[in-house]
Amino acid sequence: MNLTEYIESKREEHLSDLFEFLRIPSVSAQSEHKPDIERAAKWVADRLGAAGLDNIEIVPTKMHPLVYGESLHAPGKPTVLFYGHYDVQPPEPLDLWASPAFEPAIRGGNLYGRGTADDKGQVHIHIRALDAIRKTAGKLPINLKVMIEGEEEVGSVSLWDFVNANRARLKADALVVSDTSMLARGVPSITYGLRGLNYYQIEITGPAQDLHSGVFGGAAPNPITILCELFAKLHDSNFRVTVPGFYDDVAKLSKAERKALNALPWKASEFRKTVGAPGLGGEKGFSIVEQLWTRPTLELNGIWGGYTGEGSKTVIPSKAYAKFSTRLVPNQNPDQITRLLGRHIRKLLPKTVKFKLDVHSQGKPWVAPYTHPFFEVARRALEKGFGKRAVFIREGGSIPFVTQMHDTFKVPCILLGFGLPDENAHAPDEHIALENYFGGIKAVAQFYEGLAGL
Amino acid sequence: MNLTEYIESKREEHLSDLFEFLRIPSVSAQSEHKPDIERAAKWVADRLGAAGLDNIEIVPTKMHPLVYGESLHAPGKPTVLFYGHYDVQPPEPLDLWASPAFEPAIRGGNLYGRGTADDKGQVHIHIRALDAIRKTAGKLPINLKVMIEGEEEVGSVSLWDFVNANRARLKADALVVSDTSMLARGVPSITYGLRGLNYYQIEITGPAQDLHSGVFGGAAPNPITILCELFAKLHDSNFRVTVPGFYDDVAKLSKAERKALNALPWKASEFRKTVGAPGLGGEKGFSIVEQLWTRPTLELNGIWGGYTGEGSKTVIPSKAYAKFSTRLVPNQNPDQITRLLGRHIRKLLPKTVKFKLDVHSQGKPWVAPYTHPFFEVARRALEKGFGKRAVFIREGGSIPFVTQMHDTFKVPCILLGFGLPDENAHAPDEHIALENYFGGIKAVAQFYEGLAGL
Repeated sequence: MNLTEYIESKREEHLSDLFEFLRIPSVSAQSEHKPDIERAAKWVADRLGAAGLDNIEIVPTKMHPLVYGESLHAPGKPTVLFYGHYDVQPPEPLDLWASPAFEPAIRGGNLYGRGTADDKGQVHIHIRALDAIRKTAGKLPINLKVMIEGEEEVGSVSLWDFVNANRARLKADALVVSDTSMLARGVPSITYGLRGLNYYQIEITGPAQDLHSGVFGGAAPNPITILCELFAKLHDSNFRVTVPGFYDDVAKLSKAERKALNALPWKASEFRKTVGAPGLGGEKGFSIVEQLWTRPTLELNGIWGGYTGEGSKTVIPSKAYAKFSTRLVPNQNPDQITRLLGRHIRKLLPKTVKFKLDVHSQGKPWVAPYTHPFFEVARRALEKGFGKRAVFIREGGSIPFVTQMHDTFKVPCILLGFGLPDENAHAPDEHIALENYFGGIKAVAQFYEGLAGL
Repeated sequence: MNLTEYIESKREEHLSDLFEFLRIPSVSAQSEHKPDIERAAKWVADRLGAAGLDNIEIVPTKMHPLVYGESLHAPGKPTVLFYGHYDVQPPEPLDLWASPAFEPAIRGGNLYGRGTADDKGQVHIHIRALDAIRKTAGKLPINLKVMIEGEEEVGSVSLWDFVNANRARLKADALVVSDTSMLARGVPSITYGLRGLNYYQIEITGPAQDLHSGVFGGAAPNPITILCELFAKLHDSNFRVTVPGFYDDVAKLSKAERKALNALPWKASEFRKTVGAPGLGGEKGFSIVEQLWTRPTLELNGIWGGYTGEGSKTVIPSKAYAKFSTRLVPNQNPDQITRLLGRHIRKLLPKTVKFKLDVHSQGKPWVAPYTHPFFEVARRALEKGFGKRAVFIREGGSIPFVTQMHDTFKVPCILLGFGLPDENAHAPDEHIALENYFGGIKAVAQFYEGLAGL
């Protein structure tokens, strides 16, 4: 029985083992689940041991433990660092789940339950792949380091303490993460690019206190109006960001990459349906895929000021606020973008108001050299595991962890995601498609085997 | 002893009588004060009787009683309808009052207490003036109808029931109201113009549901951005409203009126200080007084959409909202303004969103023919009562009652206000300046006497 046949023959065993993992309510944000967190860490450590890893450690941290294990018995072969997390999002609101969050249930080819997609199901894919290799080949043909944390949903603080204290020990030739999604059902995907994210809040102050719009209106500056005028000036009629220098560092897509991205089996009509707006907006001169993955944005995420209750109040408020963010693409520099933006806002605002610009967070964009041989092994492994053509994709979102790992270890990061975009990762009825779970185990096993051939 | 000397000699009596009135907590919005409302109505009726009026009625209504009285013993002389209200705003928050709201107290030349300025103190000015005329001249030299309601602070619904049922009985040559403010301390004023008010709420819908700004940002339309762009387009660089036709019906100020308004003893520096902003805005080409009283505005009163809590959320919301209003000046028509505005918004908004525009209320502007002889009598009466030059002013705010009375009876409305702009009419520590209270009694007595000479 070869590796794929072996994995195929153990479908019920894979699932029953995964059910055990999913039943542990390892909610990192809720302190009453602390014992469940400990239990989940122990469970992961046991399974890594059973899959043949050595030096298994449940590393205590200031918050939730991190599980580490390794297999370093393939001298001369590549070393991979695999990262995942065993903690999950809170399940609330409970009454919106069709079946209980921590009682896994299969319906319509999907496995439902908190953590199925994010990220227990995907971690389990690797555990089962390693176990299958051990059971069929006896030993792992490459060197592997595994790091599974328990704080991903609450900020990963302890992870970075661990990484910084163990740089040498964690050294690898590539980083593998399975915590993303495929482009669409039936399209196994490797994500090689993410946008960065700078997040800001602005406060505009006009009058020293709220004023009556009858008594003062017509002469007093209105901070809401001025906030609106500011944001209207931040895009031109082609929906390009007007901040001088904003696009200066944007790397031009190669012809080949642009062609590949636009040829992906991705349906604009489905995207339009998901958005559900009367029409789409976006920067002129770029396809939707290009707009989403390869172009920077400046987006209002929240706005408030004045009277927002029922009925009417004739007020000119003292202050108005907005939260907004820029998605960044290679090679934009988050610090530089903040500087340019701050300078431009200062220039645009009239002298009738004061403003305060807070930087909530900054995050770099990331793109991997997807022509690196590791990526080619991954692509072939996905095609073997799924029996379908695999594709290279980017994502419009941001995963600060990936960027930071890339910057820390300077090695290729390979995002092998087995979720689907509509699987409710942080919402009720989270699920994973069974075909992707099983396909994932086969693909990951092929990947670890394939790397040995490099 | 002449009328003025008589009034001057009774200062303590005026005050002790007013204290009685102020001590009744006639809060129309709070049902536990229903007995106090009844008590206040009875108190007013008693005093009108004592001042020599006939046919006194406490008119029951669906809510709070209205007090009516009249004196029609001067055939051939003008008939005046005086309006006021005996109900007051709730006193809360109680702990912000330096002395209890319903225990009148004198400090620094001011009388403190709920209702001192709005409107019991001003109603009492008329009661004491009538009483003084009766005590000195024996009888009122003009015809007078008095209507004091108990629902002004809760919408005046019963007032309009009464007015509509008694049109013939209420017929008069002029309406007199004392429920406004003087331009400034030491400047007795007659208000002859008010702006109208249309109030709107707009809802912009882009995506069918909230979207992740990473996954969808750059292609999905953002309703907050589009709302901002809409409002930015509603003013030009001179801060004129861009709605086509918006200014078409605005009556041009006469040279004389413009000159008079700009010559008022009004300090721009004090206005700037009250606003407290780094600078003023407003329509180019007009002085502050002109901007506030004679020019229409379009003002954002509230805005909200997306994430407005602590921290960051990377959302593109489905909807964004704003409340906004236009202040209208003669001869703008509120219906027409709503039509023009709706049409312009429809034209400005991109096809990527839907919108809903709700009209919360519409109200006409009002301006009185202040060259009418009644106004001249009022001006001279104020100068006699206060010993100071009196002025004609407008207000930027709106008093729907005045407009409606004007439209109902088609007679001049004379707003003799004895409050000051900073007397906290609806706030803790409401007060009236004693000099204006006493000056008011003398001025109103002179006014009623003076009208007999027409």
